Amino acid sequence: MTPATAKEEAVTTYHSLSNSKDVLMKMTSPANAIDEDVVVVSYYRTNDEMPKAIAELYLTGIAVSLDADVYRSGQIEMASDKWAKKNWVWGPSGWGAILLVNCNPTDTGQAAGKTTKEFSPEEIKNLSQMVLTVQGPSRILRKHRLVLHTSEEEAKRARVYRPQEDDSNTFELVLGPGQHTYNFPRLESSLQETLYVEATEFPSASFSGLISFSLSLVKESQDPLIPESLVHKDTVVFRVAPCIFTPSTQMPLEVYLCRELQVQGFVSTVMELSEKSSCQLASVYEDPNRLGRWLQDEMAFCYTQAPHKTVSLILDTPRLVRLDDFPMKYSLSPRIGYMIQPTQDHRVASMDSIGNLMVSPPVKFKEKEYPLGRILIGSSFYPSKEGRDMGKDLRDFLYAQQVQAPVELFSDWLMTGHMDEFMCFLPTPVKSEDEKGFWLLLASPSSCYRLFQEKQKEGYGSMPLFEEVREDQLLSNGRDSITINQLLADENLRKQNNYVERCINLNRHILKQELGLQDKDIIDVPQLFCLEQLTNVPSNQQTEKLYARPYFPNLLQVTVMGKNLGIPKPFGPQIKGTCCLEEKVRQLLEPRGFQCTFINDFDCYLTEIGDFCACANIRRVPFAHKWWRMVP
Amino acid sequence: MTPATAKEEAVTTYHSLSNSKDVLMKMTSPANAIDEDVVVVSYYRTNDEMPKAIAELYLTGIAVSLDADVYRSGQIEMASDKWAKKNWVWGPSGWGAILLVNCNPTDTGQAAGKTTKEFSPEEIKNLSQMVLTVQGPSRILRKHRLVLHTSEEEAKRARVYRPQEDDSNTFELVLGPGQHTYNFPRLESSLQETLYVEATEFPSASFSGLISFSLSLVKESQDPLIPESLVHKDTVVFRVAPCIFTPSTQMPLEVYLCRELQVQGFVSTVMELSEKSSCQLASVYEDPNRLGRWLQDEMAFCYTQAPHKTVSLILDTPRLVRLDDFPMKYSLSPRIGYMIQPTQDHRVASMDSIGNLMVSPPVKFKEKEYPLGRILIGSSFYPSKEGRDMGKDLRDFLYAQQVQAPVELFSDWLMTGHMDEFMCFLPTPVKSEDEKGFWLLLASPSSCYRLFQEKQKEGYGSMPLFEEVREDQLLSNGRDSITINQLLADENLRKQNNYVERCINLNRHILKQELGLQDKDIIDVPQLFCLEQLTNVPSNQQTEKLYARPYFPNLLQVTVMGKNLGIPKPFGPQIKGTCCLEEKVRQLLEPRGFQCTFINDFDCYLTEIGDFCACANIRRVPFAHKWWRMVP
Repeated sequence: MTPATAKEEAVTTYHSLSNSKDVLMKMTSPANAIDEDVVVVSYYRTNDEMPKAIAELYLTGIAVSLDADVYRSGQIEMASDKWAKKNWVWGPSGWGAILLVNCNPTDTGQAAGKTTKEFSPEEIKNLSQMVLTVQGPSRILRKHRLVLHTSEEEAKRARVYRPQEDDSNTFELVLGPGQHTYNFPRLESSLQETLYVEATEFPSASFSGLISFSLSLVKESQDPLIPESLVHKDTVVFRVAPCIFTPSTQMPLEVYLCRELQVQGFVSTVMELSEKSSCQLASVYEDPNRLGRWLQDEMAFCYTQAPHKTVSLILDTPRLVRLDDFPMKYSLSPRIGYMIQPTQDHRVASMDSIGNLMVSPPVKFKEKEYPLGRILIGSSFYPSKEGRDMGKDLRDFLYAQQVQAPVELFSDWLMTGHMDEFMCFLPTPVKSEDEKGFWLLLASPSSCYRLFQEKQKEGYGSMPLFEEVREDQLLSNGRDSITINQLLADENLRKQNNYVERCINLNRHILKQELGLQDKDIIDVPQLFCLEQLTNVPSNQQTEKLYARPYFPNLLQVTVMGKNLGIPKPFGPQIKGTCCLEEKVRQLLEPRGFQCTFINDFDCYLTEIGDFCACANIRRVPFAHKWWRMVP
Repeated sequence: MTPATAKEEAVTTYHSLSNSKDVLMKMTSPANAIDEDVVVVSYYRTNDEMPKAIAELYLTGIAVSLDADVYRSGQIEMASDKWAKKNWVWGPSGWGAILLVNCNPTDTGQAAGKTTKEFSPEEIKNLSQMVLTVQGPSRILRKHRLVLHTSEEEAKRARVYRPQEDDSNTFELVLGPGQHTYNFPRLESSLQETLYVEATEFPSASFSGLISFSLSLVKESQDPLIPESLVHKDTVVFRVAPCIFTPSTQMPLEVYLCRELQVQGFVSTVMELSEKSSCQLASVYEDPNRLGRWLQDEMAFCYTQAPHKTVSLILDTPRLVRLDDFPMKYSLSPRIGYMIQPTQDHRVASMDSIGNLMVSPPVKFKEKEYPLGRILIGSSFYPSKEGRDMGKDLRDFLYAQQVQAPVELFSDWLMTGHMDEFMCFLPTPVKSEDEKGFWLLLASPSSCYRLFQEKQKEGYGSMPLFEEVREDQLLSNGRDSITINQLLADENLRKQNNYVERCINLNRHILKQELGLQDKDIIDVPQLFCLEQLTNVPSNQQTEKLYARPYFPNLLQVTVMGKNLGIPKPFGPQIKGTCCLEEKVRQLLEPRGFQCTFINDFDCYLTEIGDFCACANIRRVPFAHKWWRMVP
């Protein structure tokens, strides 16, 4: 039957009882007084004017509700669908509230025993809001207790704050680690309050990311022989926003540089480039504990996002976890977060660090879409002697973020193990319909051999590499002055590069398959490698296996700032006053709209500790696509 | 350009070089000899008949493939899409191979150090097949090694067997716990083999259920200075099939009964009923270790399913985990599996056991579909003194199965804590379009009071309950002979039942919301409860809180066998020779097509240990809907 709506004025409707009837009554608003609402049912015989019997149903409406930004608009949705609030759904037509992890670098967590915390008006905006509402006649509410609760497990991963009445910047910690239940003070009357919620950790192998909070109204028993009883419980579930990595194809916002005297050439060129690209340059200082390895190798800029706020953060995978007072924390720009992700097996050739990952640009193929790209993890890829891999914890962490489905690549053939030595993604300045929107650069020893053979044929076989490099620099890096003729005659080097070519081809195949790339999306960049024993390891960890290092400064280790590229100067053979490697790279990239700047810093790129020295870390623009609108 | 296909006969096509051209070459089958295939490119000047230059490209195709039933047809799909094999997708248009857990009750796992195992031709059919293929010229293959591998973590959850050449029933364990890599004997020629795979555990909080296997072909190095190199790797991912529970609305297949002398009335009636419903009756014997609590309280029949096989199993949540030799294992019908799920906090009032769950029939509402129903978990539901809950491990296990999204109900008000004391699902013998396909029975104290008030009005107030029960039985169960008048005059009992009614109403509300039920889908069954102190607990665990127990044998504890229902005889007031409670239940159920048989066994249902004694466990027909066709 059509529902009758009654509030102030009575509505009278007549129904025949000859067929059975369902009457659905629904309170649309809470009552101000006990038994305020009455439904009167009068029974009539046919054609009688006076009712044969009358039934009166007294109703008292109480509202209990816990609300959040369930529809991801940045606004709290009041009294939304109870089923929807409890069931978080991914995708463009999905719903469900979102929590941000507190990544404040100066936030040391809740001090033990302390139950209040100060938040500035700016800081409190990072927290998700949760509005609790209890409405009804005071005489009834006084007989109830109000409890906010979650599970013990979930309470370990989140904190809920309640504003103090007297001080707008002071908040009471009502739920958090070790405290999964909060009893509100005795209810005297209706109540509507905004609570503030933050997560304390990102999703991981042992944490799905979902945290639910419930508000229960419990009727206290007046009779010792009857237990108290729950009147209503309202639940809202949040998902902790993942940690999202940005690929080099996103525009740079801010460049962090380690100002080491040794690598002045690198530093000054990157400073110039960042000015051209109008991004902010933040200089940070060397941390003695990190042995110069920290900036690019152990840290990555990420962001995390909720409808109400986007937060940039640096994810740190330190070798030594006890670095409570790591200076970088204090060198970060305001409002940039900091988060430690401890790793287990963090040796010199650091497969188990954040440096061992890259991120692809967004891709779409075979009806499969990765709107935030895919994380690429360098690994040993197949069982081999002395295979090195990313540790389980870090790997599980990356998979648990869900939104950038990882792909494993084979990088264990490189001494550093890091993929940035053989590949690089560049944004396409102009994106046409049938293009991917990016280029993949791959190191190509055969392309380098072809180039040198051409130059030999043209009569430049006697031109030397490394002409502009000081002899002591060359020696200390295990290189020697060498001509094109000598290089081409070195059968051993040729074999080594054939091996490297096979390793890169394997990755080319995986990248084509997992990112839906075609050969036309890939640019082969001339680069040679040579095999050497693992350096910088204790002698008991020394093995016979040989690993690849760039033979000349690595053309693939590009500092990408939109169309401005900072490329290591390769110190190749000078032909008619121009380095033929530089010329080749310009031929490949400049017609595609890039501006190449070669960074004159041999030490930075090729010294024995060079792999740890390429010390710029770039914070980039977050993706336009919101992570909750994808279906992982 | 349109691809040219060439095999035996040469195909010649001409292209102009004035525009750049991509030529894609693809091997469609492996080669029999080295450099068997040749692509010849001849370069002509315009109008010349003789080529100016000729390039010859020699190709040797090698096939390396690891295949499984990726498209869930029950058949191995050979050389299927490599990207698809690595990416398991849920849903009707999804794909991905499936593994079954080995639940063989007599299988004690792999004996330590033993590397072979016997499988009967019947047993081996439970395992998923994985076909490995390596094809190519022998002279090339001999220089390679072939490795089957997975990760250490994944190897803990699965076993891969390789048939022994000489004995069709003996299989070599090639991958399994502690053994995540298997090197095949040196390749002499092409190879195609079927391997057999099984999982060792169901998905859980620490195990997503995904296990991938890879086959790598590694080129051994002929030169000590060049490392070996991976030629090709093929990966296939399996998902371990979840453990699926069946609701009472599925038709029964087999009834397991505990033949205790004390409950002869129950046993004989259930035997009759199972004959009527033509299901097999299997009798099992009492296990002294279990104190009579095991059949319904600690075990549940489930099934697990792959496209090639469906396996029934019993999931056991024993109080004592050391019961290696539990007799039930040997009483199960052939081919029924057995799996232990240890629980932590398994006290007398056993919230932390499988008895504390029910399963709803499939439901669909608000565009949300649960085609395998939802698991209902009894809980304390809100923070209260002495709240009892299911342990984290068992709860996490239920959530990790993914396909029957759990709902929590409030059952901690019951002494047993088990929902089957206030609710029951019945199948509708005939399903019409706008009906749910099932009925939900809910205990209703108010409906019972209404019935007794009617009978009092009709003049039967002096009729007694429990007339047919022996006095000693009544006394030992804390009951006394009582008339309708006396019962209605007992204000304390009324208050207690008002409390129970509130608890049930709360659950009614949740069930309507989470299963999309309407009031017309629910049948109120008259049932009274009374509050008592927790029994059978050590005195130091005794609390002041009172818990509900059925006042008379519980009409909700129905043994459901399709339309044949075995209902506890309530021993209510005899009016005109008929128990008015039985009459009321018949009035409710018989017009809906059910046949009610009242089970005359007061002890079975109401003795102090009665809650542990309702000892029939029914194996039911699996759902027609395949779990992999849903999207969780």
